[in-house]
This record gives sequence, C-alpha cells and structure tokens, in this order.
Amino acid sequence: MQSLQEKASEWSGVDSADAFAIDSTNLFQKLGLQAFINLSTNFYTRVYDDEEEEWFRSIFANSKKEEAIQNQYEFFVQRMGGPPLYSQRKGHPALIGRHRPFPVTHRAAERWLHHMQNALDSTPEIDPESKVIMMNFLRHTAFFLVAGDELKNPKSTSPV
Amino acid sequence: MQSLQEKASEWSGVDSADAFAIDSTNLFQKLGLQAFINLSTNFYTRVYDDEEEEWFRSIFANSKKEEAIQNQYEFFVQRMGGPPLYSQRKGHPALIGRHRPFPVTHRAAERWLHHMQNALDSTPEIDPESKVIMMNFLRHTAFFLVAGDELKNPKSTSPV
Repeated sequence: MQSLQEKASEWSGVDSADAFAIDSTNLFQKLGLQAFINLSTNFYTRVYDDEEEEWFRSIFANSKKEEAIQNQYEFFVQRMGGPPLYSQRKGHPALIGRHRPFPVTHRAAERWLHHMQNALDSTPEIDPESKVIMMNFLRHTAFFLVAGDELKNPKSTSPV
Repeated sequence: MQSLQEKASEWSGVDSADAFAIDSTNLFQKLGLQAFINLSTNFYTRVYDDEEEEWFRSIFANSKKEEAIQNQYEFFVQRMGGPPLYSQRKGHPALIGRHRPFPVTHRAAERWLHHMQNALDSTPEIDPESKVIMMNFLRHTAFFLVAGDELKNPKSTSPV
C-alpha cells in the first residue's frame, strides 16, 4: 500500500525532497511576518470571492475569513522557521485531522493551489525563489491532504 | 463546542502554555540524538513487553518495534528543536490522521503515559528539568489525540 507521502508525491508531481526543501532555509527570517499576513490575506480574499467555482467557495462558508487568514499565516510562520504562533493558540497542526470536516478532493486541491499561485503572484514582498520553494511545499501538502481525506473512505475510488 | 486544544488541556490537566513550553527551549541541542534514541527504545521495550495490560500491547501488534522506535524518536527530534528527520522520511506528522487506525481512548493515553514516565525515569541522559518539560508536552499531546480520536465517532460518549 502506498504511504501518504508516496501518494502526495505521485499526485502532486513534487518529490518529498523538493517539498521539504522548506526546511533547508528559513523563510520567516528572510521574508518577515508581514509577507505571510499579506499572502494569506490575498489568498482568502480570492477564495471568498471565488465566483467562478461556487462549490469551492462553499467549502469555507462556515468559517470566518479573518479567522481563516490568521490560522493560515500562523501555521505558515511556524512551519517556515518562525515562532510557534499556531501551536501556542491552537495546539498541534494535525493537518489531516483538522481538514476532516472538508471534502479535500483532487479537484479542491487544484483549486486551492490555483488561488495560492495567484496570491503568491500578487505578493511582491516574497521573492521569486522563495515562491518556488513555498509552492513545492504547498503543492505536495495539498495532495498529502487529499491522501489523508481518502482515509475517511478507504474503499472508494479516487475522485478525478 | 470545545476545541481539540481545550479538551486536551482539561483531560490532561496540563494547560497549553505548559505543554508548548517545549518551544521555549531546544531540547535536541541540550540532550543530543542518542538521548532520544534511548528514550524511544526504552519506551517501546516496555510497550512490547506489557504483559499486565495485554489490550494495550495488542494495539501495536501490527507494527514492527524497530520501526515504531524510529518513527517516535525522529518525530521527537524534529519537534524538540532538531533536524526534520521525520518529515524528510514520512512527510507531515499529521498526528491525528496517523493515529486514526488505533483506539486512542482515555485509558490508552494513560497507559501510554505510564510507560513513557517509566522510560524517562530509566533514561539518565535526560536531566530532571527536561523530563518535566517533555512530560507536560506528551501528556497534553496524548489527550489531544484522544480528542482527535473522538472525531471519528462524534456522537459517542467519552470512554472512561
């Protein structure tokens, strides 16, 4: 049976060495807190305004935008070399467990990544090299969560 | 509704500030790799030899002892200030997701902690102050996972 990590690599097209290159640099020291706040604000502004793909926006219908922004940038800061803001407030990231209420399908992962790429493109505080490192990590992670989501229904076939 | 973090604090008796004091020091730098290997070896030797509580040992029946030891010390090293050994090999810790196959009840958490306290007591490479910091983190985390386990059956009452 394929591991979560193997599925994430296969589906994302990003091998785990490239995904976890995030740990070979300290993006928080390089970019600073405000870059992460701006990125997550850009991202969720796009998500909550997603009128092309209503099904995707509806996933976030029960979450407050401000809270979603804070959860995300605090996790990014903590995971990318900064202070453990997320865990101090909410405990372990527990990425699969916390995504359990949501339908994290292949299609949802691609839509999430579409908005994230656009958010990165509109965040000039983040340099191009850091953007590549972040997207490799985020693309791999998105499909790691798709693999985690399928644990809920282990016998179903993968959605396309 | 109580959050995972609130349940973990209530059930463990450890508030989150004490649990995440783990991030205010660097236990890996202080203790070194071998201390973590010894701790996890001590721990799983106790678990796999648990003849008093056969139900607890049986939770690990399908896992190889050597692999369980490596998974645990690599996670501890990564979480306590060392290199990201766990993520390089297996990806995100995803603590709740990865514990999904196991019955993480209140009783199982207490038995896990019983063995961990004994393992710490028999690991002289770890100083008493570090042991307290680690146990606060581990006790809180064990009950965080009990809270995570209950997500699988959200309407059931808590097992005692």
